[in-house]
Amino acid sequence: MSPGMARGEAVLDPRLAGARQMLSRVRAVVPVMSAKGGVGKTLVAVIAALHAARRGRRTGLLDLDVTSPSAHIALGVDPGSLQPEEKNGVVPPLVAGVRFMTVAYYTWDRPTPLRGQAVDDAIREVLAVTNWGELDLLIVDTPPGLRDEALDTLEYLPDPRVVAVATPSRLARAGVERLLALLEEQGQPRYLLVNMYAGGDGLEDLAEKYGARYLGRVRLDPSVEEALGDPEKLLSTGMARDVAEAVDRLLEDLGI
Amino acid sequence: MSPGMARGEAVLDPRLAGARQMLSRVRAVVPVMSAKGGVGKTLVAVIAALHAARRGRRTGLLDLDVTSPSAHIALGVDPGSLQPEEKNGVVPPLVAGVRFMTVAYYTWDRPTPLRGQAVDDAIREVLAVTNWGELDLLIVDTPPGLRDEALDTLEYLPDPRVVAVATPSRLARAGVERLLALLEEQGQPRYLLVNMYAGGDGLEDLAEKYGARYLGRVRLDPSVEEALGDPEKLLSTGMARDVAEAVDRLLEDLGI
Repeated sequence: MSPGMARGEAVLDPRLAGARQMLSRVRAVVPVMSAKGGVGKTLVAVIAALHAARRGRRTGLLDLDVTSPSAHIALGVDPGSLQPEEKNGVVPPLVAGVRFMTVAYYTWDRPTPLRGQAVDDAIREVLAVTNWGELDLLIVDTPPGLRDEALDTLEYLPDPRVVAVATPSRLARAGVERLLALLEEQGQPRYLLVNMYAGGDGLEDLAEKYGARYLGRVRLDPSVEEALGDPEKLLSTGMARDVAEAVDRLLEDLGI
Repeated sequence: MSPGMARGEAVLDPRLAGARQMLSRVRAVVPVMSAKGGVGKTLVAVIAALHAARRGRRTGLLDLDVTSPSAHIALGVDPGSLQPEEKNGVVPPLVAGVRFMTVAYYTWDRPTPLRGQAVDDAIREVLAVTNWGELDLLIVDTPPGLRDEALDTLEYLPDPRVVAVATPSRLARAGVERLLALLEEQGQPRYLLVNMYAGGDGLEDLAEKYGARYLGRVRLDPSVEEALGDPEKLLSTGMARDVAEAVDRLLEDLGI
């Protein structure tokens, strides 16, 4: 099976119909994407989910970065000891108020080198088996970069509203632009959140150019490293205050 | 052609024999790798090449991050106006004393979403056509992550001596460990350079555990962003001073 066929096949794979069914009672699916790794995508996804749950929204968090899952580390979950219950599919355990699903439950925390088709396969499998129940919001941490596995995710999720996370580095700018352009081409609702850790301008011009709603800037905050693994501490960092404001804007915009 | 066949095919592809020929007069090939994006891999590769050239080594720099090439931005090269000469293959132009080759010469600076096999193909093609001539050192900026395209690169390059670049974030630690373990399994000579931008410990324990020579720590230096595009300025940053020390250690170790 050639990786070039993936898009064509999508409609034929019964797992994708299953995935739609599993997500049918989720009001808003929000993939967090980035054109490049190391921009804080995972931290934004984790903090956003924790904050939304504190705000009383029924919230899920799905780590689809299947070759290097790390959301569980930020949440302090030992994937070897916490295992999801099986009940009409796999029911994600509740972690700090968030329904949390990750392939790390099955790969025992080892980063997994996978060929392209195997990555796509793992993503479809996780989507097909996870029973989310009723949720207001599902945050999805996607694989970084402009590779198929990130872009295909958008086809597998119903009505995705993408939050693009970016840094203003000139080395990364062309990538951010390409991601926003792709989202615009596909007509996906899109938001931009900018991580300021390396300084630079806030990329407001790119949001404007590609019709993305600007969610704000996130400050550099070295205290986050220490707070990893402790949801309470994570929520008290400066980074979390900035992400929380962005999430409040997002919830308002989504009407949930 | 299935991506799962890539390793098996490698011996049969005449382009790879061509690549070996093109690299036969290069004394040391040094791929710069990272388990995840955003750790400063490209900056390290660019500064290392600039510094080695200043030290009088005949130096080349090859940007193999074919989906998101960015070394040309750090060097201040406009890939539309600078085009390599063709003479027994493609002769990389001299930029600030460094023979510099990138796919951006051909993609006009647009990040390119490619499927797995196409990425591998572009990498083989660049390796097969580039006539490096006689060099002391060729630094290779590789695609980030533990995907095939990064790992396969090691099979295409003769006697690679890998510099792994990492940050000490706990979110990234498992990935760094996996990369070093893979290099150890394959018996590749390996070095570790740690980018300290987010704080944390220096990962010396991982270098020890996987038999990697420790090249040092690189400090956080926001002035780098301003220096992008200006090799002279880049070399005067604090980051460059740390990278320069690491490169001097590397050159000594390689005996060049």
